Amino acid sequence: MAKIIVKTERYSYPITIDTGLIHNLASFLPLKANDQVMLVTNQTLAPLYLKSLLITLEGNGIKVDQVVLPDGEQYKSLTGLEQIFAALSEKFHGRDTTLIALGGGVIGDLTGFAAACYQRGVRFIQVPTTLLAQVDAAIGGKTAINHAMSKNMIGAFHQPISVVIDLDFLQTLPKSEFISGLAEVIKYAIALDSDFFVWLENNIEDLLARDTTALRYCIRRCCELKAGIVAIDEREENGQRALLNLGHTYGHAIEVAMGYGTWSHGQAVAAGMVMAAETAKLLGQFATADIERIKVLLLRAGLPTHGPDTMTAESYLPYMQRDKKVLAGELRLILPTGIGQSEIRSGIPSHIVIKAIKHSQIS
Amino acid sequence: MAKIIVKTERYSYPITIDTGLIHNLASFLPLKANDQVMLVTNQTLAPLYLKSLLITLEGNGIKVDQVVLPDGEQYKSLTGLEQIFAALSEKFHGRDTTLIALGGGVIGDLTGFAAACYQRGVRFIQVPTTLLAQVDAAIGGKTAINHAMSKNMIGAFHQPISVVIDLDFLQTLPKSEFISGLAEVIKYAIALDSDFFVWLENNIEDLLARDTTALRYCIRRCCELKAGIVAIDEREENGQRALLNLGHTYGHAIEVAMGYGTWSHGQAVAAGMVMAAETAKLLGQFATADIERIKVLLLRAGLPTHGPDTMTAESYLPYMQRDKKVLAGELRLILPTGIGQSEIRSGIPSHIVIKAIKHSQIS
Repeated sequence: MAKIIVKTERYSYPITIDTGLIHNLASFLPLKANDQVMLVTNQTLAPLYLKSLLITLEGNGIKVDQVVLPDGEQYKSLTGLEQIFAALSEKFHGRDTTLIALGGGVIGDLTGFAAACYQRGVRFIQVPTTLLAQVDAAIGGKTAINHAMSKNMIGAFHQPISVVIDLDFLQTLPKSEFISGLAEVIKYAIALDSDFFVWLENNIEDLLARDTTALRYCIRRCCELKAGIVAIDEREENGQRALLNLGHTYGHAIEVAMGYGTWSHGQAVAAGMVMAAETAKLLGQFATADIERIKVLLLRAGLPTHGPDTMTAESYLPYMQRDKKVLAGELRLILPTGIGQSEIRSGIPSHIVIKAIKHSQIS
Repeated sequence: MAKIIVKTERYSYPITIDTGLIHNLASFLPLKANDQVMLVTNQTLAPLYLKSLLITLEGNGIKVDQVVLPDGEQYKSLTGLEQIFAALSEKFHGRDTTLIALGGGVIGDLTGFAAACYQRGVRFIQVPTTLLAQVDAAIGGKTAINHAMSKNMIGAFHQPISVVIDLDFLQTLPKSEFISGLAEVIKYAIALDSDFFVWLENNIEDLLARDTTALRYCIRRCCELKAGIVAIDEREENGQRALLNLGHTYGHAIEVAMGYGTWSHGQAVAAGMVMAAETAKLLGQFATADIERIKVLLLRAGLPTHGPDTMTAESYLPYMQRDKKVLAGELRLILPTGIGQSEIRSGIPSHIVIKAIKHSQIS
């Protein structure tokens, strides 16, 4: 078992990584008998894991109510939120309730935001079931729902009291979702850790085979990197946490332009990271050979290295300018400055970005 | 001009109290030329004050967009919130935008919550226009909307960057709303400050005549008391801030049972404070003579001293148990222990509460 402590402004909390965690109440400390819990999950996960989790919780005297939402990004919305509030209100959940998010990024972000707002903030526990959520979304207290044209436009910083990463979930994860998570894994390596990039180059096949030892190391390393960033920039104020958005501004454009869910988040981020690298290269701060290393690793992971053929380079811009990382109308991007290092760069002319996207499409 | 500093976990901010403040950009510091602002107000206030405020802001080069909602508590809801988000999104407001709430508690709570959630938190300035908002709602960062059966069920702690209290607003405030605000003023005195209670006994007629000198002292004292509480218990965690809910659990029952707006918040709180005092008396911690002093002051202020005739004492309980101040199903109330002091008391049997409400009805 690996335990990583996330230090935040108001308190610290553990990330626990192991197999078999959902069968053991100790994974869910400080929950105890007679505590009230609202478990939020979706219709895909409920048949697989809900019963096991209920046995662990109810078997130890915890009072559990449930919200089972349909599966899909479209429930990460005011509508999905409203369903959780209705359940909390109908079942008379008080300020001392604990929400448990059993699911991927959609369930985690939505449940976390519900916990942030219900009675101005109640406790919640993240039980991420996808690779993407285990290495990224479930850690660090960013919660949100989508609104109109933009992802994560409405949200809060609200830290969980615990993150329970059960590696067993990954064995039932659809291949496409597993691969989508690998994009965020590769993002950590490009943005922050060149040694981890080399480790990925050496171990990508074991990861794809979902070897437990490889998964354990990989997830632990990502969680350590994330916890390190959260400790120094919990609210994305000093530029450190923003580095984790590498590739995301370009990627959001793809996700929104194509319609949520057409391209997976990971596919969009993968293509976005190549675009970011091409942009950095045009600005004279990134080597062609490193772009090739990134593309080779993405391809080995089963990820794309360019955006959808139906999108012109010019069509990205309106979506990128709408992105919430835009400050006062100026285009501001996270760009790599080498494998394992990155920076925020402001005032990038749009023609450079368009040229970089074109380079990613043709090369 | 009076200036009071509110010290919170993350930063301090000023409350400025004076006449004529909305005509002076200095009241809205740190806003400056080219800043982006979303001004939220309602259809009652817009014809009275919007133009003056726009002259001050736009005349100094600030870019202002507006949301003008219909007047009423029913817009303190997900629907009202959605209108603000839509405007922010349509007008491409970024993370550096500032929301300005020009209005009473409804506009302030709603706008504050929108500011708390939009892009996970943007700046906002409170410009409270009612007595209730000037002495209470606009200060201290409690933001919320109503949900289904319960008031303020969904919200956040999100501090404004400034509170601009222009005493001129009070001259156009309808009498019923002014009197509603006096209930919160009297609440501060009963809960926290016996000298202020005596001051109110000596000056209530000047207040009712809206004498500027009396208003200035009264509002300043309430803001000082509120700022003192917020500094030691920003998130209502250690029991200090909860004292400001004196009378509110009973009062919420009236507001919800009668339908929002049938009884004003202040009328409900006034009756609730008498019920709280009667409860405290039954528990042997409050003198009959002090109940009389409270009732006399409330009556002089034009406020009720008991609940609606159509509500039986028993009918309060379901609403009070649904109140968000209930912990683990146990009835927990703020009760006075004398004029100027109060405490949180747990485990109060419901028959005592019913008896106390009956006493308030017949005496």
